[in-house]
Amino acid sequence: MNLSPLQKARYQYVPKLPGMLRNGISDICVKEGSKTQSVADQEKIEKLFPNTYGKNEITFQKGKNTSQAKKQVVGVILSGGQAPGGHNVVSGLYDALKATNSENVLIGFKNGPSGLIDDDYLIFDDEYINQYRNTGGFDIIGSGRTKLETKEQFAIAAEVCKKHGITAIVIIGGDDSNTNAAVLAEYFAANNTGVQVIGCPKTIDGDLKNEDIECSFGFDTATKTYSELIGNIERDANSAKKYWHFIKVMGRSASHVALECALETQPNICLISEEVAAKKMSLVQIADYIADSVAARAAKGMNFGVAIIPEGVVEFVPEFSVLIHEINELLAGSKADAFNALATWEDKYAFIEKGLTKESMSVFAILPTTIQQQLFLERDPHGNVQVSLIESEKLFSALVKANLDARKKAGTYKGKFSPLHHFFGYEGRCAFPSNFDADYCYSLGYNAFMLIQYGYNGYLSKVSNLSKPAEEWVAGGMPITKMMNIERRHGEDKPVIKKALVELEGKPFKYFEAHRDEWAKETAFTYPGAIQYYGPTEVCDLTTRTLALEKE
Amino acid sequence: MNLSPLQKARYQYVPKLPGMLRNGISDICVKEGSKTQSVADQEKIEKLFPNTYGKNEITFQKGKNTSQAKKQVVGVILSGGQAPGGHNVVSGLYDALKATNSENVLIGFKNGPSGLIDDDYLIFDDEYINQYRNTGGFDIIGSGRTKLETKEQFAIAAEVCKKHGITAIVIIGGDDSNTNAAVLAEYFAANNTGVQVIGCPKTIDGDLKNEDIECSFGFDTATKTYSELIGNIERDANSAKKYWHFIKVMGRSASHVALECALETQPNICLISEEVAAKKMSLVQIADYIADSVAARAAKGMNFGVAIIPEGVVEFVPEFSVLIHEINELLAGSKADAFNALATWEDKYAFIEKGLTKESMSVFAILPTTIQQQLFLERDPHGNVQVSLIESEKLFSALVKANLDARKKAGTYKGKFSPLHHFFGYEGRCAFPSNFDADYCYSLGYNAFMLIQYGYNGYLSKVSNLSKPAEEWVAGGMPITKMMNIERRHGEDKPVIKKALVELEGKPFKYFEAHRDEWAKETAFTYPGAIQYYGPTEVCDLTTRTLALEKE
Repeated sequence: MNLSPLQKARYQYVPKLPGMLRNGISDICVKEGSKTQSVADQEKIEKLFPNTYGKNEITFQKGKNTSQAKKQVVGVILSGGQAPGGHNVVSGLYDALKATNSENVLIGFKNGPSGLIDDDYLIFDDEYINQYRNTGGFDIIGSGRTKLETKEQFAIAAEVCKKHGITAIVIIGGDDSNTNAAVLAEYFAANNTGVQVIGCPKTIDGDLKNEDIECSFGFDTATKTYSELIGNIERDANSAKKYWHFIKVMGRSASHVALECALETQPNICLISEEVAAKKMSLVQIADYIADSVAARAAKGMNFGVAIIPEGVVEFVPEFSVLIHEINELLAGSKADAFNALATWEDKYAFIEKGLTKESMSVFAILPTTIQQQLFLERDPHGNVQVSLIESEKLFSALVKANLDARKKAGTYKGKFSPLHHFFGYEGRCAFPSNFDADYCYSLGYNAFMLIQYGYNGYLSKVSNLSKPAEEWVAGGMPITKMMNIERRHGEDKPVIKKALVELEGKPFKYFEAHRDEWAKETAFTYPGAIQYYGPTEVCDLTTRTLALEKE
Repeated sequence: MNLSPLQKARYQYVPKLPGMLRNGISDICVKEGSKTQSVADQEKIEKLFPNTYGKNEITFQKGKNTSQAKKQVVGVILSGGQAPGGHNVVSGLYDALKATNSENVLIGFKNGPSGLIDDDYLIFDDEYINQYRNTGGFDIIGSGRTKLETKEQFAIAAEVCKKHGITAIVIIGGDDSNTNAAVLAEYFAANNTGVQVIGCPKTIDGDLKNEDIECSFGFDTATKTYSELIGNIERDANSAKKYWHFIKVMGRSASHVALECALETQPNICLISEEVAAKKMSLVQIADYIADSVAARAAKGMNFGVAIIPEGVVEFVPEFSVLIHEINELLAGSKADAFNALATWEDKYAFIEKGLTKESMSVFAILPTTIQQQLFLERDPHGNVQVSLIESEKLFSALVKANLDARKKAGTYKGKFSPLHHFFGYEGRCAFPSNFDADYCYSLGYNAFMLIQYGYNGYLSKVSNLSKPAEEWVAGGMPITKMMNIERRHGEDKPVIKKALVELEGKPFKYFEAHRDEWAKETAFTYPGAIQYYGPTEVCDLTTRTLALEKE
């Protein structure tokens, strides 16, 4: 194995714990807080979680450890997409577990929740875990997207736990995985298995956030990585002075990633999906908004710029989402056969024209051909349009070009418009965690074990006050049910953790809104540069602008 | 202006000079080396450069400064594509100039060589230059691609120099720009203008390299930035275990960037254009070579991997380059009208089938439709195929997929193949320069002024022994004519600096060749992480693996 110099150096990094966890295991005690209620639909949720609902919020503090001496065998699972810091959750968990009792065992289930069902696992020891400290990726045990949600799966899980003598399971995942963790916790409690379940909040998308979770881990590192690249491209744009860069960034439905990157880099344009939805903007309106910036800059001789496009934006454009729905209907099941039998794109186009409503056809007609073809030719196994594959960065630059061509004809625009396109996502999910994420994740894992040791079940490992230095962070736990409400999914009422979208009344968006008109016309680029792990604290240890503004 | 914490911190960085330049201006003297000859075509080149040919190589050393006291007015130009460190060349130049005589003046010509012709300039002062120290980009004065090569341009340049009292011009550019610098130097000497010309070797492509220039500046930072991203994607691939990532990297014709990234990250596959050409590989052979790795890994349950594709590779595939040539012929001038008049792609395809030779048509036929359409629909103003726009990362993944489908039918392959695509280029050209590039560039600029002060003309600023700590670097100058040979360009014999391609007998390629079979089958990924400016020296100060291997 050929390790990079940085990887070797990062092994030596000692993550910072919240002050209250720094005195050693024997000096951590619990302070019970008040009873909790779910954020909405209290009666329904209490009914669904009779054994785990309404428990107390807790925090840890310095004081004699009063937990029961008991051998712990803990299983840990990484669920869903990668996020920087996952390895540190595991190593924090491992260190607290071993410091409590060297006989304790940490089992890693491989390749996501399916590892628990398939009983595919490894047992951690020092040598193994030391290879993963402060590194990115989920390769320590792998991850997967299997959902743990059926009674049958729970029964198998209980069997596997019994076989290994497992006393607790830690699930590291996003909103869905933590919802499932709560359901599993309830099942284990209802069936007197004696197995506890603790969740940890993970996702680079930043959409697992509420009054208890200040941010999910990985968001800091991922957005810093994308901001590094966007800043570099901004500097390139400002040097070459001839390209407009359209940059799509990951983040699923929510625009937290795009917004944070915009706060870090001050681009000319950043679309916010939640605003597009709230204002019911059409594709043409969005293109016109971007073209305004292009034209204003061109008038000052600046035929260059940078626009950030959140991954999920097209789904938030009402007319586009209707179009997608109609296409899915048009090609549902065997109806696709007639379409597929048509030999040329011209024939297919005629078929489409006949099948869509007039409104949707008018939207379809303005799309560039490559996007039209993507919509019809690249469908998922169920025949549905794969919205996440739509190259929206190219879609918007094509619409902007059409808009500018019209302005040129009308004599209101005289510039040059040369667009380039980028998509950043996979570049940031497995970066070496920033010092913030390394510390936060290690603390989440360490703290998760303390929750186990004190007997809590159905709790989320909670570390807060994160905009302050780690010394001042607050460690504790929150019943997952507290974050839940009831949502209609696939025709059923389901208890779920509410997904956090960008709040248009929140301070991060308000700050952006107050500055974006200036950024659109001027060149106010900020160049964050690469994540630094060493050096001045203001360079290495600050977390996101989003959190700083939220906590202002 | 909203500066990032890193930008503020980098202002404080003090670049390291070669030991012999560290004692202050008054203690730098010249050691003349031997007379030089051009690397080939000596007679022809001497004839073209009667006033500047055959001069001595020189190095600087510690000793009493014997240069003439004379007010210097120096003009500086950034030429061509951005490379990290350009700002430090300018600040090194400025510092040496001002340290020699505070009355000296540094003039920056704006937006590339055209700034000299248009007399578009600014005059540097401390306040201005301090905003750009140790930062990326060429935004300090902008860059441009105008070539300074005609007598008319030279005459105007001489006028502009006279107007400002300019004593020397420093041109920061790649092989073409430095060739032009030599021609301009000869012109100035022949016409007794008294203006000197000094070149500095810039390009992220790494193809300006020879026995005198160990590496061009920017190559270190750009390849470290791409390697960061490739490493992050490798870690993602190894965590998710379900995608093959096809990553195209910039670098023009040469594969130095791809090779350096491969040495840093140990991917499963890295194509080297120079090898493709030497072995006269076909598209089908290349696809088969990649598919071998995919299949070997799939047989071990690893349906994931990373392949690096150098930007220029398709031009090195003999059959593809013939195809491009035929397409350019087929659509030359008015012949394109008939093609453009055809309404459907099917009709166009028939036209193409009729127009290409059988051999080229068989190559064309295996291309994915999107690439076929790119070749015919996206042509430059002269009607030529835009080779640099060909999405070769998608081309190869499509060919590999076809190859694997055939293997599947034959029962020799049972894996899954889900490709994802990336192109890295603009992300690295304007990154904050690594410590190496910050030091190297500052030294090049500082050194360039010493060459001016000692009266040299038509020299390249040369800093060598770069694989050693900066203290041991050797500063001096080399007549640009020494690096020249005669090449046939556009039907004319031209004196040019020889472009360096990857040498298949060189140590970097040999190292790669010795390891790639293992890398293709195993997961031997190395994760370099982000460029670090602070921290342990082995993390912050090492330059490229390429240079380390070359100097082994």
